[in-house]
Amino acid sequence: MDELGAVVVPGFRFASVAAGVKKSGTERHDVALLDAGALVPAAAVFTRNRVRAAPVRVSEARVRAGRLRGVIVNSGNANACTGAAGLRDAEAMTRFAATAAGGNAREWAVASTGVIGVPLPMDRVADGIGRAGADLNAGGFAGFAHAILTTDSGVKAATRTLTLGRRRVILAGCTKGAGMIAPNMATTLTFLATDAACAPAWLRRTLAAAVDGTYNRVTVDGDTSTNDSVFLFAGGAAANAAITSDAGAGAKLRTALFELLHELALMLVKDGEGARHLVRIRVTGAKSEADARRVARRIAESPLCKTAFYGRDPNWGRILCAAGNAGVPLVPERLALHLDDVLLVERGLGLTAREPGLEARAHAVMSLPAYTVRLHLGVGRAEASIHTCDLGHDYVKLNADYRS
Amino acid sequence: MDELGAVVVPGFRFASVAAGVKKSGTERHDVALLDAGALVPAAAVFTRNRVRAAPVRVSEARVRAGRLRGVIVNSGNANACTGAAGLRDAEAMTRFAATAAGGNAREWAVASTGVIGVPLPMDRVADGIGRAGADLNAGGFAGFAHAILTTDSGVKAATRTLTLGRRRVILAGCTKGAGMIAPNMATTLTFLATDAACAPAWLRRTLAAAVDGTYNRVTVDGDTSTNDSVFLFAGGAAANAAITSDAGAGAKLRTALFELLHELALMLVKDGEGARHLVRIRVTGAKSEADARRVARRIAESPLCKTAFYGRDPNWGRILCAAGNAGVPLVPERLALHLDDVLLVERGLGLTAREPGLEARAHAVMSLPAYTVRLHLGVGRAEASIHTCDLGHDYVKLNADYRS
Repeated sequence: MDELGAVVVPGFRFASVAAGVKKSGTERHDVALLDAGALVPAAAVFTRNRVRAAPVRVSEARVRAGRLRGVIVNSGNANACTGAAGLRDAEAMTRFAATAAGGNAREWAVASTGVIGVPLPMDRVADGIGRAGADLNAGGFAGFAHAILTTDSGVKAATRTLTLGRRRVILAGCTKGAGMIAPNMATTLTFLATDAACAPAWLRRTLAAAVDGTYNRVTVDGDTSTNDSVFLFAGGAAANAAITSDAGAGAKLRTALFELLHELALMLVKDGEGARHLVRIRVTGAKSEADARRVARRIAESPLCKTAFYGRDPNWGRILCAAGNAGVPLVPERLALHLDDVLLVERGLGLTAREPGLEARAHAVMSLPAYTVRLHLGVGRAEASIHTCDLGHDYVKLNADYRS
Repeated sequence: MDELGAVVVPGFRFASVAAGVKKSGTERHDVALLDAGALVPAAAVFTRNRVRAAPVRVSEARVRAGRLRGVIVNSGNANACTGAAGLRDAEAMTRFAATAAGGNAREWAVASTGVIGVPLPMDRVADGIGRAGADLNAGGFAGFAHAILTTDSGVKAATRTLTLGRRRVILAGCTKGAGMIAPNMATTLTFLATDAACAPAWLRRTLAAAVDGTYNRVTVDGDTSTNDSVFLFAGGAAANAAITSDAGAGAKLRTALFELLHELALMLVKDGEGARHLVRIRVTGAKSEADARRVARRIAESPLCKTAFYGRDPNWGRILCAAGNAGVPLVPERLALHLDDVLLVERGLGLTAREPGLEARAHAVMSLPAYTVRLHLGVGRAEASIHTCDLGHDYVKLNADYRS
């Protein structure tokens, strides 16, 4: 995204510095600051993992009243499984941010990502936050988006502009995360900022729905992390009539938020560690959306299916097998399976054994960088989709030795 | 198991032949026959996958009355997703078996394993069953155990002998399966034969409990297949007083059955495709056994944990993270984690960052062919274990291109 340097969200300033949290000797930025300039409506969604990192616990309390001044972020260290000292460190980061940028500590949230179980080097963090405060600027979004990364192959950011009433507003977002990405929320840090004016209650409700409809529909390897957080700030500089419902301007901003989060979520899957194929698992003809989701997720997380995607092997038996393990009642005789437009299974019956050339056509689809597996259950009208990626040697390579 | 050729279960005869179901040109045996010589008490447990292969559907009906004459098995073709023709083929196999060995078709069960979605070559199957019938002999157990294999690296069989009253009895079992092995039942075919006399109701109850306590506690990759079946025949030639309860002789045979199935289950995990490490996930201090099992299973099936096992990387953060995703309430401050006797996490706090040498000791444990990951939840007294294996390059290699 070459134009990222030009992204400005009126009212917001960003900063990033190399504080030395990531491996020493590198000059990679690892402390980042988002400052709304004042206490503004804000919402957040956090990991459902029962082991929650210190910054998640601190931020959850801070955002409860529906307003925040900003968020201080570090990459390279998750501040998770760090006990009471970790909580103190997370709180200290918000104090340093308030001192460096403005407001008081209780108006700041905090987010961390990186290695688990290692105490933060607080001297360097404190120094970095101080320098970031001095560097805050309206054009700092690109640097911010870069500083939050860990094993990502590149910056993941997107924007939407829209007109609310007669006001032109912008919604900008960035995310990080590769590996450990799954429902219930893509394991990731995400930061969204808009200059639209919104009521805190609407913001909270809408962010929760948007995360559920987008991030919770992607998976890389089924594990959600201790640190997942999505923050949304609505600064209000656009001076539109504050949005309080899904009618009119609310509908437009809601749609933009869904689109933006969907775009960011797909960036996460595409960047799944070592992934070569973005595979949409679409389950149709289910009795309920919940059933469709369960079946889709089971396929999306099956190592046997994911290695078949890697090998471009149209082994549809594995897909049916995974579907059968979802705990959803199936009528095998009604199942139909497509890879894009190639029909492989009809009424539960495999066609590859009798149709010469069919397997080659399916293999060709599976060689594409992105395609859809559609499983029709034939028992209802509900459907759901989950995006996943293949699992190959690079995934093993990256994860067998992540820390060395 | 060199002595397998000497295994005799009084009253039973076995046979195996190369019928040409597996890739042509090979002389690998692929049709096998187990004949109890008469209608005898028998029980079976089948896959919980909602997509059930034709032989499973036929056998389930046949065993319902609690007695069977024998079972006809083929490897190389699963006869799954083969529609009405597949059901007719499975039924035909039992007719051929009855003709070849004795009894009538309704007294026979059938089991198949191999590729999904391809019609059975019934001419060759019929011919093979006929030849197997002529070859039935008391010493055929080793050949039978060999003929049921597919991608297994070798025969998996075990026996127990015990005294019931004054009668010496034997329990012999064999199994197959590598890959697609998971609760709710290790994806596998298993055949057990004893000359003990047992009531059908006791046999059914006891087999179900034994499978739940053994096979359902192992996992390779989380998918159960369309064909999983465990059969247990009690021929009665030992002429002990028929077992009807868990008291006395019943307790002894029950224990032997649990032990034997546990031994076979571990053989399955050790032979997980490409596996180098047999890892026992033991969760203690849980509020309930169900909670402990859920947490253990989540760790055992996490690709991030399994690649760390492969890389011998004591990345305990991933284990805590997977535990946190199990949907079981955790108190992070009470968690303790051991690798064998090496304590890595105490009261939720990682120790590797502060104890030099600790990581090297943990790495040494993870280099062993077998070790235990023990996660203590600190909220109760219940516990559970699941055995799993690592996930490495060989798994990807074998599964990305299974069929070529």
